Amino acid sequence: MAKNTNIRISLPAVCFVWQIAMIILFGVFIRYDEESDTHWIEHRRKKNISTNLENDFYYRYPSFQDVHVMIFVGFGFLMTFLKRYSFGGVGFNFLIAAFGIQWALLMQGWFHHLDENDWKIKIGVENLINADFCVASCLIAYGACLGKVSPVQLMVLTLFGVTLFAVEEYIILELLHAKDAGGSMVIHTFGAYYGLTISWVLYRPLLSQSRHLQGSVYHSDVFAMIGTLFLWMYWPSFNSAIADHGDGQHRAVINTYLALASSVLTTFAISSISQNNGKLDMVHIQNATLAGGVAMGTASEFMITPYGSLIVGFCSGIVSTFGYLFLTPFMEKTLKIQDTCGIHNLHAMPGVIGGIVGAITAASASESVYGQEGLINTFDFKDAVANRTVNIQGGYQAAGLFVAIAFGLVGGALVGGILKLPIWGDPADANCFDDDVYWEVVFVMCCGLYHVIIPKHLD
Amino acid sequence: MAKNTNIRISLPAVCFVWQIAMIILFGVFIRYDEESDTHWIEHRRKKNISTNLENDFYYRYPSFQDVHVMIFVGFGFLMTFLKRYSFGGVGFNFLIAAFGIQWALLMQGWFHHLDENDWKIKIGVENLINADFCVASCLIAYGACLGKVSPVQLMVLTLFGVTLFAVEEYIILELLHAKDAGGSMVIHTFGAYYGLTISWVLYRPLLSQSRHLQGSVYHSDVFAMIGTLFLWMYWPSFNSAIADHGDGQHRAVINTYLALASSVLTTFAISSISQNNGKLDMVHIQNATLAGGVAMGTASEFMITPYGSLIVGFCSGIVSTFGYLFLTPFMEKTLKIQDTCGIHNLHAMPGVIGGIVGAITAASASESVYGQEGLINTFDFKDAVANRTVNIQGGYQAAGLFVAIAFGLVGGALVGGILKLPIWGDPADANCFDDDVYWEVVFVMCCGLYHVIIPKHLD
Amino acid sequence: MAKNTNIRISLPAVCFVWQIAMIILFGVFIRYDEESDTHWIEHRRKKNISTNLENDFYYRYPSFQDVHVMIFVGFGFLMTFLKRYSFGGVGFNFLIAAFGIQWALLMQGWFHHLDENDWKIKIGVENLINADFCVASCLIAYGACLGKVSPVQLMVLTLFGVTLFAVEEYIILELLHAKDAGGSMVIHTFGAYYGLTISWVLYRPLLSQSRHLQGSVYHSDVFAMIGTLFLWMYWPSFNSAIADHGDGQHRAVINTYLALASSVLTTFAISSISQNNGKLDMVHIQNATLAGGVAMGTASEFMITPYGSLIVGFCSGIVSTFGYLFLTPFMEKTLKIQDTCGIHNLHAMPGVIGGIVGAITAASASESVYGQEGLINTFDFKDAVANRTVNIQGGYQAAGLFVAIAFGLVGGALVGGILKLPIWGDPADANCFDDDVYWEVVFVMCCGLYHVIIPKHLD
Repeated sequence: MAKNTNIRISLPAVCFVWQIAMIILFGVFIRYDEESDTHWIEHRRKKNISTNLENDFYYRYPSFQDVHVMIFVGFGFLMTFLKRYSFGGVGFNFLIAAFGIQWALLMQGWFHHLDENDWKIKIGVENLINADFCVASCLIAYGACLGKVSPVQLMVLTLFGVTLFAVEEYIILELLHAKDAGGSMVIHTFGAYYGLTISWVLYRPLLSQSRHLQGSVYHSDVFAMIGTLFLWMYWPSFNSAIADHGDGQHRAVINTYLALASSVLTTFAISSISQNNGKLDMVHIQNATLAGGVAMGTASEFMITPYGSLIVGFCSGIVSTFGYLFLTPFMEKTLKIQDTCGIHNLHAMPGVIGGIVGAITAASASESVYGQEGLINTFDFKDAVANRTVNIQGGYQAAGLFVAIAFGLVGGALVGGILKLPIWGDPADANCFDDDVYWEVVFVMCCGLYHVIIPKHLD
Repeated sequence: MAKNTNIRISLPAVCFVWQIAMIILFGVFIRYDEESDTHWIEHRRKKNISTNLENDFYYRYPSFQDVHVMIFVGFGFLMTFLKRYSFGGVGFNFLIAAFGIQWALLMQGWFHHLDENDWKIKIGVENLINADFCVASCLIAYGACLGKVSPVQLMVLTLFGVTLFAVEEYIILELLHAKDAGGSMVIHTFGAYYGLTISWVLYRPLLSQSRHLQGSVYHSDVFAMIGTLFLWMYWPSFNSAIADHGDGQHRAVINTYLALASSVLTTFAISSISQNNGKLDMVHIQNATLAGGVAMGTASEFMITPYGSLIVGFCSGIVSTFGYLFLTPFMEKTLKIQDTCGIHNLHAMPGVIGGIVGAITAASASESVYGQEGLINTFDFKDAVANRTVNIQGGYQAAGLFVAIAFGLVGGALVGGILKLPIWGDPADANCFDDDVYWEVVFVMCCGLYHVIIPKHLD
Repeated sequence: MAKNTNIRISLPAVCFVWQIAMIILFGVFIRYDEESDTHWIEHRRKKNISTNLENDFYYRYPSFQDVHVMIFVGFGFLMTFLKRYSFGGVGFNFLIAAFGIQWALLMQGWFHHLDENDWKIKIGVENLINADFCVASCLIAYGACLGKVSPVQLMVLTLFGVTLFAVEEYIILELLHAKDAGGSMVIHTFGAYYGLTISWVLYRPLLSQSRHLQGSVYHSDVFAMIGTLFLWMYWPSFNSAIADHGDGQHRAVINTYLALASSVLTTFAISSISQNNGKLDMVHIQNATLAGGVAMGTASEFMITPYGSLIVGFCSGIVSTFGYLFLTPFMEKTLKIQDTCGIHNLHAMPGVIGGIVGAITAASASESVYGQEGLINTFDFKDAVANRTVNIQGGYQAAGLFVAIAFGLVGGALVGGILKLPIWGDPADANCFDDDVYWEVVFVMCCGLYHVIIPKHLD
């Protein structure tokens, strides 16, 4: 039965209504913070700040731009690997990220940055980074659903995903006071289980009808490598973007750089050993090489040591590649979870590893390694948690991981239920992974599977 | 009648002569400024500057690199969308930008930075950014002519374009003292009308002879998305690159980020609503999503408020997409303007919107919102314009917009006339949009419109 | 005779063993430096450093990320130009760079940064940049061997390449006290001669058997332009990344920006003049446009003047393009050197030009131009070399160039001998430049030379 994929009313309606809602809510709630307001010059004098460079902008802007590239080019191009779904991969990623960052500024603002004097949210560059982070979790979830959902469904997925994210982030970072600079838990673990559960709810038993479109062609794999490399290269910026000024950002970069390098080698090793003649599989290279960055998300600020970072990357590259080899087929057959991009291997498992590594590293921190002040600074042991010990911190880190998983599973089940309603214009099983459903494609991939198009003036 | 497209003498001659002229003129006029000269250390001591970080390099270099990427990858790849003109799109963009930045350093230097003591131009990182900005206007103009002109014509277009730019920029920024940090007026409006007028003068009534090459193929559209996304992501850097240190740069980033996000949603909405079944059109997504950045160029530094930025993006995304739907065909048929990339929709209209928004925002500025010092800093109300009111400033902003349009129209008419001379090696109507004219293409697009190449060893 | 290209044991073994060795050696030797350690706050107080911004991270991180992009996307995509070797180009580049940066941190650490108190190497962001620099020399060498070697051979090439690099760098920069901020000598000249000599040792007389794969197709040339442009745009960051804080970095950027712009014009000129009808050759545009950056590597920090930079770019663009036209065919026929990417034209000759320009510029430096302090700062005339004159410095610069060439030639001969052993799984002459040997390629380039794949459901 052909499904109705006409989104001519629903997509424009969602875009317009939500964008107008954003404008109204921004009008009511969002203002510039003191570093982006013209009163900064007075603020500087009052606080005796000697130079414009102390404006947080100069600490964080280069990292912000790198993160921005990861969100739009990194995630976007990573999802262009399918032979006939490159428009949908990069295009819908663009749409939902552009919506999500606006909604994230509001949701995160209400939970973290609401000024109790005037009930306004004051935003600066750190809020922009956090909004990009938040939206990353929804883009991860998109990876599980790639090719099987309509853009309207993706907007709904993002609306609820950002909402859930803001709540679980508030619980993990503020209530539990866990540390998670690069978001192994709050971004990757949550996003992956959110997407996987949605994909489980939306299970399509007859998806094999579009299996001929579920692979890549030569050049679509090269396009996907653009995504992979920009994610890989800028991941040190991701994990350090909101770390502490000074040594915190510096150390997060070193740790992430090393973990990523290490996971490249183990990915190549496992990919080669798993095939006849040792031939490499592009799917592994495009994805599992990034596992080190995911797994270093929580502990990136900690004194995990350079060789500790290498070990984390070593293990996560192996686990992730094995996931692509064995777990993805198993999950599809047995658990009825169809995970187009393999986010379970790239985000869920390395994210959980990252959470565990973070908990262990925190629990084993000591004044002899960190220094007295360093320990306090790194874990923010002040105010309400001034007396927390590192062991207790480790426990709270572990608790944070469970919160992230729980939010992903429960939230995904709820949102999956909503997305299952037959009103969203999703494609029929035989039309999945096909740009032709939602895009004007005149000459679809001149030499793809279907057709050699006869030029109009020749026939 | 086949035209002579042999550029074996003319292109090398133009490149060599102009490059040698650049060397001579640089030898006479261009020197390092005090922040890039080895005397910086003495300068620091004299001016009591405590740290190397106060060197403007550290304020502006990250933004500069982002702008640089926009010029060469952003504009370059945005113009690879044609099925057989990707080499020309990215390659000629590369050539004329590399020439234009040199000529811009001289032209802008003579008008803005000539040291009256020794008649030298002292350059630093801000000059490099301004040179990139200047050349952007010529790349915009290229967009209207894409596929229809020879590289020699493009070099001439750039030579005069940079020259005109430097003059109109001097009038708008120095004489009128209008503000235009991201160049809605001086870059986009001028560049677009310059290119459109040239395209009007060079009107080709028989261009339909090459209409079969005037579309995209699947992968060329994905290449173009590289350009789109790098422009989109780095536009906050573009609009903030030469804004005031501190809150000025910070605020420009926030405003541009929001305007861009907003125009993505309205672009998707209008694109979807305009087609059967709500299918999206890649041309809209590649271009109109950027309209928010263009329209935020003038007001990016101002206290336009976050929701104000969203509104600007909202409107410009709609206007731009409608332009692609209705205005481009209308202009081609009725006004005889063939606008290959639709720069009227992406740069002219949003640029004019940006100029108007800037004028209104300036006119409605107040001490209660900006603070006394903030108002003076933001609009540079000092020296000759110390007593200017915001209303008068608004008027001068509007005047600036007219200057930009006038320079575009008059300059474009003059340069178009020059380019119409039959000496520049431009292609025949039937050979437009074809890389084969100016590039060695051995296997042109193996499965394009023309041919399935039979492998040599099989026939 | 078909060669055995099975790398199912050797590649995983090399990856695992070397990665484990890295972990052990990092455990023994590598620690955070004082700016990336949690004791930074105490260090700041002790050294009376007023702000976190004085952490070297904020001086160098934006440049580091640009260099990182050059290594992985720049070099990687530049090598995707072959019609059937894009996976190998970008994929193996990824593998060996990820290994090389780890080994470089150790090798460079032992030679330059070993703390004599505790025999540890303390790393920070500058070490990460230097590791990227070091690995660049091996990626250059890869360019000569592209398509003709196995990934195992590349790992060996990188192991020895990094080792040799660390030694020659130590000799040139520390013992000779030559300056080479952008590595014209230590990176480009060494890397190129290292690769060329290896390619000479591995000469394949019957390589013409795979000549049908040794060209590009339309879209692979566009992919390669991604590499070209990211190298071109970020080269100013490359040449300034480890330059002196303040005016040193600032000046290096200006000089490199200008040299690159100039070499674009001369490349287009020579490319056009060399062909019938003045048609341009993508190979030249992809490569020779970068020659200005290579040739500005040594002198980028010096007061070479802006027009001096333009002259350097002017000449190196010409030399490089002529190399592609005449030298590469000559070298293949007469000298038996098969240089897939033409690294002799892009790295060897411009690198030597850069070394010579550096020596001349150093020898002609004067206090009247540099200022007394400026001269000392720029050339680090202190401690052991406090009394060195600029003439002597020029001589040492020249000596450095010879050391780089000598290390490249001798090292390449030795490593080439090792790589000639018949145990590394390299492809047969008829299978060179073919991804099918080392990668799972299901639908190899749907419309390449070999096959029109008949869709499964149609046959």
